[in-house]
Parts: sequence; structure tokens; C-alpha cells
Amino acid sequence: MQELIDVPPGLNNVAVSDTEIGAVLGEEGFFHYRQYDAVDLARRHRFEDAWHLLERGRLPDETEYESFRAAVAAARVVPADLDRLVGTVAATPGAALAKLRAVLSMAGPALGVAPLLELDGEQRRGQALRLAALVPAVLAVLHRRSVGLGAVEPDRSLGHAAGYLHSVTGITPSAGDARALEQYLMLTIDHGFNASTFTGRVVASTGADLVDVVCAALGALAGPLHGGAPSRALDALDAIGTPDRAADWVRGEVAAGRRIMGFGHAVYRAPDPRSALLREVAERLGGELVERAIAIEGEILATLRELKPDRPLPSNVEFYAGVIMASVGLPREMFTPTFAVSRTVGWVTHAVEQAAAGKLIRPAARYVGPEPGRAPAEG
Amino acid sequence: MQELIDVPPGLNNVAVSDTEIGAVLGEEGFFHYRQYDAVDLARRHRFEDAWHLLERGRLPDETEYESFRAAVAAARVVPADLDRLVGTVAATPGAALAKLRAVLSMAGPALGVAPLLELDGEQRRGQALRLAALVPAVLAVLHRRSVGLGAVEPDRSLGHAAGYLHSVTGITPSAGDARALEQYLMLTIDHGFNASTFTGRVVASTGADLVDVVCAALGALAGPLHGGAPSRALDALDAIGTPDRAADWVRGEVAAGRRIMGFGHAVYRAPDPRSALLREVAERLGGELVERAIAIEGEILATLRELKPDRPLPSNVEFYAGVIMASVGLPREMFTPTFAVSRTVGWVTHAVEQAAAGKLIRPAARYVGPEPGRAPAEG
Repeated sequence: MQELIDVPPGLNNVAVSDTEIGAVLGEEGFFHYRQYDAVDLARRHRFEDAWHLLERGRLPDETEYESFRAAVAAARVVPADLDRLVGTVAATPGAALAKLRAVLSMAGPALGVAPLLELDGEQRRGQALRLAALVPAVLAVLHRRSVGLGAVEPDRSLGHAAGYLHSVTGITPSAGDARALEQYLMLTIDHGFNASTFTGRVVASTGADLVDVVCAALGALAGPLHGGAPSRALDALDAIGTPDRAADWVRGEVAAGRRIMGFGHAVYRAPDPRSALLREVAERLGGELVERAIAIEGEILATLRELKPDRPLPSNVEFYAGVIMASVGLPREMFTPTFAVSRTVGWVTHAVEQAAAGKLIRPAARYVGPEPGRAPAEG
Repeated sequence: MQELIDVPPGLNNVAVSDTEIGAVLGEEGFFHYRQYDAVDLARRHRFEDAWHLLERGRLPDETEYESFRAAVAAARVVPADLDRLVGTVAATPGAALAKLRAVLSMAGPALGVAPLLELDGEQRRGQALRLAALVPAVLAVLHRRSVGLGAVEPDRSLGHAAGYLHSVTGITPSAGDARALEQYLMLTIDHGFNASTFTGRVVASTGADLVDVVCAALGALAGPLHGGAPSRALDALDAIGTPDRAADWVRGEVAAGRRIMGFGHAVYRAPDPRSALLREVAERLGGELVERAIAIEGEILATLRELKPDRPLPSNVEFYAGVIMASVGLPREMFTPTFAVSRTVGWVTHAVEQAAAGKLIRPAARYVGPEPGRAPAEG
């Protein structure tokens, strides 16, 4: 029998492949896209700058930026032959991510996608851009139709974040709201080999097409242990109500053995570098929800330090993500889908890199059941 | 920085988790479901026996078999509220697996699926059975509608394999055809941590629902390096024509650097244990295609031994799979979907096991790009 190689459960810390896309340094509380600090990028640059960096390996100059932004805006439109299907899907019951997957599963021919195995690098990048730009457009139309509203005419003069917000709310966002959402989206494009990104890479390794990749990753993102938390952190704020009730609420949750959504992370031991910037972004937006969230965060952190002195549980990306999304006018059911808007850019970038590696991901397992033998004669 | 653990590319031979479902012993040319030789099961038992074994860990007695078979037959029906959607999806362009994924993505509420994280073992198994039984029913209706035919009234008296064949062709199959397809399906339920099964396990590890799991796995199965081969092996038989032309054809393909579909396997070095039984099954069916396939297989093997003396390239499961599926009346575009009919049973079994393990799969990667640093000021 072949020698099996044992690794830690959940493949934790196992380097399943090389990557040039970025990394998360959990101990240092640092993550980067290509050669740049990701928080730094979100502070100083625009969404399309980061996207171009991820896709091409360098930040665009101003001419490249304009041309890239125009290409993204042109692709942020639901093709006419898909539009009727979006209406049909919107009228069905179900979660937004599942509906998005239904639409994308029918979008392959309209987008001209083909198996990654049959494409060169430039073709892969072209299809990656079209698909990642289409995702927010489909999500916005699905949402609006499901609440009885018509689709919004796309405004190509807007950047990716502002264009998405406009397509959901129907209102041209203020510069402040657009920038706040843009910074949230920039901070969540990529984050190592998380479950959805890794799922997408396994699918890409089979040579399947980018719709297959994104649909698979969406399923992982739908999992409560992965993408399901931004709205639950806000639900917790609702449940707590006022800051003076936070400590008792945390004690109750911990006593019941439940995790406190928005605190702690699988990889970070240092504070999540995304949460500090998101808190700043929220402070800039201001308002009652933000003030309450800041006060409650302080109470939760103090109570967690007291209850779990040995286990650092800093606020993670999800705590302020929900506060920001609500403050810019996104409905709660769009929180996880909005996470998908940015993460899709990461997924397709990883899929293109995985396809270039050209190696099928096919692990093994350790069989621990009863010794196998012949089957009994029937009956 | 955390110490990363390096492993072979593609996670080959890496035991990513424990399993009690089965294993593939590549050197021995042996694979098993739970405690029984899988080829033995396919020789002596029925599809629902193997399914019950996988789900419950033991073969059913006759009473259990009848009740399990009835439960599967009852679930092998497209619910009324999904039926209209199947018609809409069938009318769109695209590949059968993508259409199946579109329908399943809208089927969650009709099936009552919920995140695996929120279910107990019995609920997970119940949803697994319903979903795996629904897949062939949806595939059959999608196929018939796409060629302008109406859906076939389900015949609950038929077993799973015969019922599927009936639902595709509209004809109650002969006992010989039904048994041939049943044996193919039994041999392809599960096969270690192949790319689609592993994809499904990663998604299940996030606590997502079984529709998310199966939709993700379908994407991996669509990849040309994984599930895409059964029809291509038959395409090769067409291209070769007569046995006397096989040697020249193989030489041409090898000279052009192309793989010979239907020969060689990522895991098996010994002959693929599935192919020997599939060849017997094909011989039992007989006919011109089978005779030609046997003669051509002999020529291909002899030529491959001559061209690649150091690399064993035995016939794999795909060579006779296509011959059998064509012989029982399945159209070529249904070959990979038919593979999905059996493999879905494997996927959902793995998802239930993974969910019970309760550990998020979140690997790492080795960053090999330029040293990360601060981003430049904008512009």
C-alpha cells in the first residue's frame, strides 16, 4: 500500500500549493495582495487598482486604470438573454447566494466561458473579469426583483463599489458611502486559502470553467462557519440593544457554549488587521448605529478578556462589516452576497493561477473503518 | 510566522482526513465501499444495497431493502413546484451538468434542505437521500425537454438504475440493459478523495447545505481532467473506426503529445479493477460496438506497451463505461451526467461524514511572490 502522509486536521498550516497572489501572516496581524499591504491598498487606492494589481501583478498607471475601470463597468451589465432568467429565478424562494448560483449556471453561453484547460492565460483573465464584474449586477437585479422593484439602469460612470451600491438601492450614493463600501470590498477580496477560495482552486484544477469555479466557491461561502457571519454580528447588536446590556449578554452566550459572532478568527492571533480600518471607516460614516457598535464592542472585548483570559478574541472583519453595510443602505440579506461581490475577484484570480499550475488536486484519506473483504452472496 | 507544512503537489497521497466510507488501494488494484470489495458488491448486489451500505454502514436485510428502495423511488420524482423551473432551464443553452446545478440551486426550499451545521445525523441522511434520488430525475427531464420530448411518468416499481434509464429513454428497459447500467453505476458511486468528492467535503466542512455540496462537486466533475472522459473514449472509438487503424491512431496521438482517453489513472498502477468487470458487462450486452471496442482495446494496449514500456497504461473505468452507456441507449451527452447520478450518492455520504467531523477545512499556501511591503501613495 502507498505510504500516506498525515497532516493536521482541516489541513491547517499545510501549504497545499505555491501562490503569488498574497498571504495572511496570522501571528503578525498582516495580510497582503501581491507585493502590497492590503490595508494600505484599501487606505490609499481604489477597488479597480487592487483588482488590476491582483490580475496583472502591478498597480495600473492612470491610463491603464481608466481602461480597466471602463472594461469592468461594461461587464457590470446583465446580458439581455440572461435578464429574463434572472426574473424567473428572482421569483423563486431561496437564499440570495443559491439564486446567484442558479443564474450563473445558466450564464456560461452568454459569457462565452470555456473549460480553463482549453484557454490560454489571456483568455482566462478575460473570462475572469467578465464573470467577476457580472456577479454584483446579477445580485442587485435578483434583490430588487425579489422585493418587487425593477432593475436600475447601470451607470457606467461609477466605480465598481459605487456602481454596485447604486444598482441595489437605485440611488447614486454619496462619495462617503461609496468610499466606505469600497474600502470594505477592498479588504475582503482575498484572504489566503480560506475554504471558498480553496474550493474554487480544487475545481479549477480539474480544468473546469470559471462558472464551475465560482458556483462551487459560493457554496462554501454560504456555510455558517465561513461567510455567514456579517449579518449575525448585526443581529447580535440588535439582541444586545444598549451597551450596558452587553456584558450580561456575552456571559449568557459563553455560558450557553455559543461563539460570539464578530470576535476571534481561525488564522489571526494578533488583532485582525481588517477590523481596525473598518472601525475607522465606520467612525467616518458616523450615526447612531456606529456609536452604539463602538460602545458595545468595548464592552464585549472587556467581558471576553475577563471570561477567556488565555484565548485572545479580538474583533474580526465581520463586526464592523455589518455596521458599514447597514450604514450605507444595504439590506441585511445582502451582507453575505456583498461579501461575494469582492471575494469573487479573489476566486477568479486564484482559479487563473491554479489553471496555469496545471496539476489536478486529488488528495487521499486514511481509511479507519472495518477491514475490507469480500461481499456476502446476495440475499 | 507560522511554520508551514510542505506536501506533494496536488496533495497526492496526503491523508486529508480519516474516513470510514471506503478506500482505493492503487498498488493492489482494489477499492472498497465500507467493509466490502466494491467490485464484489457490483457483481452480487443491487444499487440500493450498496447505497444502504454506504449510508448505514451495513447491507440491508430484505425488509430494509424493500423499504429503502421504496424511499428512493418516492424521492426520484421532481416536485411539482420545481417542474416548471426545470422546463425553463431546459430551454436555455448550456451543458447538462450546469443546467442540473441551476435547477438544484432553486430546489433547496422544495427539498427542505438546511445548513448541515444545524442538522443532526438522521436529518442529514434524510436530506442526502432525497437529493441524491432527485438528481437522476432532474437530469432525465432536462434531457427530454431539451430534445423536445415530454417528461416520462416515474415508474416506482423500478430500481434506481432501471428507473433512471426509463426516465431518460421513455422505454422500460430489458433486465439485461438495466443490470448493465446498474453495475456501471455501482462501480462509480465512490472512489476515494477524488477532486469532486474532496470539493464536496470542503464545502460540507463550512456547515453549508447539501445543495451547496452537490453543486460544488458537479463543477469539479465537469472538469476535463476529472469527469469529462466517458464520451471522449467513445469519440476516440469513432475516430479510429476499425481495429486495424488503432495502432496508427495511437501513434499519432502520442506523437502529438495527447493523452489516450480511457487509458491510465492518477491512482491505479495495477489494472483499474472497475474496467475488468465493465468489460465483462459489455461482453454480456454484446453487439457490434462492443466487439469493435474489445478488438480496438487490444490494439491500443499493445501499441501503448510498445510506445511507453516504462509506464503502465491499463484501460480505466472510462473505456467500457461509454460502450455500456451507448449500448443501453443513453445518448452521448448523458454520459458524464450519468456518472453524476451514481457519484452524487458518494458525495452526499462524504458530506454527512465530513459534517459529523465538524472541522473547517482551511489550508495554507506558500507565498512565492515579491517581498510584500507598503503600497505607494495613490496616483
